[in-house]
Amino acid sequence: MGHTDNYTLLCDFYELTMGNGYFQTGMDQQICYFDVFFRDVPDGGGFAIAAGLEQIIDYIQDLRFSPEDVDFLRGKGVFSEAFLQYLLHFQFTGDIWAVPEGTPIFPGEPILTVRAPAIQAQFIETYVLLILNHQSLIATKSNRIVRAAQGRPVSEFGSRRAQGADAAVLGARASYIAGCAGTACTLADRVYGTPAGGTMAHSWVQMFPDEYTAFKTYCELYPHSATLLVDTYNVLKSGVPNAIRAFQEVLLPQGIHDFAIRLDSGDLTYLSKKARRMLDAAGLQSCKIVASNSLDEYIIRDLLLQGAQIDSFGVGERLITSKSEPVFGGVYKLSAIESKDGTILPRIKISENPAKITNPHFKKVYRLFENDTGKAIADLICVHDEVVDPAQPLELFDPEATWKRKTITDFTVRELLVPIFQSGELVYRQPSIEEMRTWCAGQIDTLWDEVKRFENPHNYYVDLSQKLWDIKHKLLAKRG
Amino acid sequence: MGHTDNYTLLCDFYELTMGNGYFQTGMDQQICYFDVFFRDVPDGGGFAIAAGLEQIIDYIQDLRFSPEDVDFLRGKGVFSEAFLQYLLHFQFTGDIWAVPEGTPIFPGEPILTVRAPAIQAQFIETYVLLILNHQSLIATKSNRIVRAAQGRPVSEFGSRRAQGADAAVLGARASYIAGCAGTACTLADRVYGTPAGGTMAHSWVQMFPDEYTAFKTYCELYPHSATLLVDTYNVLKSGVPNAIRAFQEVLLPQGIHDFAIRLDSGDLTYLSKKARRMLDAAGLQSCKIVASNSLDEYIIRDLLLQGAQIDSFGVGERLITSKSEPVFGGVYKLSAIESKDGTILPRIKISENPAKITNPHFKKVYRLFENDTGKAIADLICVHDEVVDPAQPLELFDPEATWKRKTITDFTVRELLVPIFQSGELVYRQPSIEEMRTWCAGQIDTLWDEVKRFENPHNYYVDLSQKLWDIKHKLLAKRG
Repeated sequence: MGHTDNYTLLCDFYELTMGNGYFQTGMDQQICYFDVFFRDVPDGGGFAIAAGLEQIIDYIQDLRFSPEDVDFLRGKGVFSEAFLQYLLHFQFTGDIWAVPEGTPIFPGEPILTVRAPAIQAQFIETYVLLILNHQSLIATKSNRIVRAAQGRPVSEFGSRRAQGADAAVLGARASYIAGCAGTACTLADRVYGTPAGGTMAHSWVQMFPDEYTAFKTYCELYPHSATLLVDTYNVLKSGVPNAIRAFQEVLLPQGIHDFAIRLDSGDLTYLSKKARRMLDAAGLQSCKIVASNSLDEYIIRDLLLQGAQIDSFGVGERLITSKSEPVFGGVYKLSAIESKDGTILPRIKISENPAKITNPHFKKVYRLFENDTGKAIADLICVHDEVVDPAQPLELFDPEATWKRKTITDFTVRELLVPIFQSGELVYRQPSIEEMRTWCAGQIDTLWDEVKRFENPHNYYVDLSQKLWDIKHKLLAKRG
Repeated sequence: MGHTDNYTLLCDFYELTMGNGYFQTGMDQQICYFDVFFRDVPDGGGFAIAAGLEQIIDYIQDLRFSPEDVDFLRGKGVFSEAFLQYLLHFQFTGDIWAVPEGTPIFPGEPILTVRAPAIQAQFIETYVLLILNHQSLIATKSNRIVRAAQGRPVSEFGSRRAQGADAAVLGARASYIAGCAGTACTLADRVYGTPAGGTMAHSWVQMFPDEYTAFKTYCELYPHSATLLVDTYNVLKSGVPNAIRAFQEVLLPQGIHDFAIRLDSGDLTYLSKKARRMLDAAGLQSCKIVASNSLDEYIIRDLLLQGAQIDSFGVGERLITSKSEPVFGGVYKLSAIESKDGTILPRIKISENPAKITNPHFKKVYRLFENDTGKAIADLICVHDEVVDPAQPLELFDPEATWKRKTITDFTVRELLVPIFQSGELVYRQPSIEEMRTWCAGQIDTLWDEVKRFENPHNYYVDLSQKLWDIKHKLLAKRG
């Protein structure tokens, strides 16, 4: 990137003023627990998808202040010299647990937990949130679009409308984990292995004396998987007939039947049906039709409902910015501190708005699966030292309407948060992008269709254990 | 950044397939002209603000394919070896003109023009669009928010919700050019000189045994410009009284009167009025009130209309993502090619949608200012070799309703596009960020208030010269 190759200083300035404050008052070694969680699923959906952990790991491992960074901070005139000297040797020595990338996640549950000395735990807030918020947003949106396409491949085409270079490259990465078939972004392929593809822009057609010559030349150069963009002048009068002629004259004589046209404007239902008939009438049943132009999950769903003859989709700005809801509201909240003897003291943040009250304490999260179907029943947030034994019946209750209770049996459990760093050492094997993509698809299969509806989905249960509920309400009674 | 320090491969894959195609067919040295322009102002506003040119300059100067990049491309199995060898020596040798950063811009007019051999002009499409789209989006949104605050300082607080690291840092940059007073992003200050500030999060308050001790400790550590966050427990019952006590006990005895409280939740009109009365009653008239929490231009306007007692604003996710409209739709379109003898041959892109028809030819843009008031009257898009003489009366006409004509006199002109690169050499002096910010404010002052309305603004005139109009309609008649 143009401005730096290290993101240590990508922090909110208050993390440094607080850090200096902890340092000056002897609180810097105070062990703290922070949780990342989010409050609402974007687009009113039933679940989100976690993404971005690999970049957080890179960031934690690269954390260091250069002498120039420290000189810059000294120039602000607010930090003690002892603190500035400390920063020169700053490194992360704490513990991190997180949900693996590609896992469905739900509001209110921790998706990443940090245990570290105050100064360190506070310092990483901005970057950790930024990465998880961005990539989880794009993974969640992409998966909605992929599901709308009902098995037809979706390619990510949005680099030019992304909010910066990272948004393009890491957005392509997140979209691939969440099920996109590929991207137009070459750099994402080079760095993350998300397969890049693409054929031509309108300018290719405009550069030639006529559309037919442009198509013919392209087929000669790229006889395999040629996709011709047919809307530079007029789709049905010019684009499709010229494409048919190029396929027939250049590719069929070579025995090649793997080619496509792309529609990028106009009414895609109407044009795809007309084009399909023209292609079929010319004996080009094998020719695929690709569609693009301001698509999202709603438009794709409607196109398919109307019988549009589209075999794959290219999706740009509405995916790469999650245009309909461009913010994933993950927050980073203190949940506990440790006394000198190692006792964990839970902390709560109260708010005028009940939804903004935090779940205190060092916690773990179990996902409970019905043995019969393999489907996820609920997530259960517990205190860190609780153990759920699937051999015993388990009573769950609604944390708001506590009289709503049910007992489950015949289930299995999985802990959602896995160890990533222990005492500053990486203890997690980073999966490959293909592993994450496969994991994501498999985990989404454990969700009921009711949870996957685009609008008004079933509200998946995220419950608190009785022990955690009691601790939370004791703190509320004290502070409220 | 984590993935690379060079953005050469941040291109759509089709730019490489087309590039290889031009190379293979001997068209790679064909001189082409491309324009960047946009079609709609975000949020229905009356104008946008150009930003991002500095990063485009860096990108053009850094363009190079490493041997590893070329190996990667070779592995895709679609490029000729001669093309791959060519890429090893690839550099930009063309010309670029652009609108300086901070300038108000309008739909349909070129804001950046490239003249270069086909392969080069095509290759830079994605990155040029990505940068201009992102930063112009954030500059445009930020300026709306700054104008809503009616002179009260606005700080950019959104890093944690930005769409990636670049979005945070370059978003802070764009927001500062457009009038924000500062940012919370430390790295933006370090790299771009956008002043960073910040004091405390809720976690600071939670870390201490009680709120008063947290506030008192902060005031002792940072006696100058202390801003205390007063909503961790209860704003009026606890936060404001504890802040008043800390100011009175720690700062007033030192003769310090420069401090503030920050409200980050609840009804900001109600709480700010109540807090103001409590502060005034305690003799703390000098205490400022800062407000944050999901603000944008509409909420700020309404808060001030209701008499909220707020002295400055912190704006996060709705600024840094331009949440209400997160896409700036700049496009990159071929406008002309040059024949071997240097004749410029205009090109047009037709569309079923008339708004998507391009303005052909190598062009220049004049902004016309009324001498009387200094206000901008209209922008006039001309063919490159036309000269507008302000000493002569000038007839303008509506390019859609061509019978709407008026003649203007007593005006001055300025060309909007200035030379940036000539034959690959940088010929532009990059202004400082303070110069760009001052330029932006001054240029917005040349717009009538009617153009600056948030909703249903006056439609600023962007006209075509008679010569350009004639060329466009001749091409339309031929292709339509």
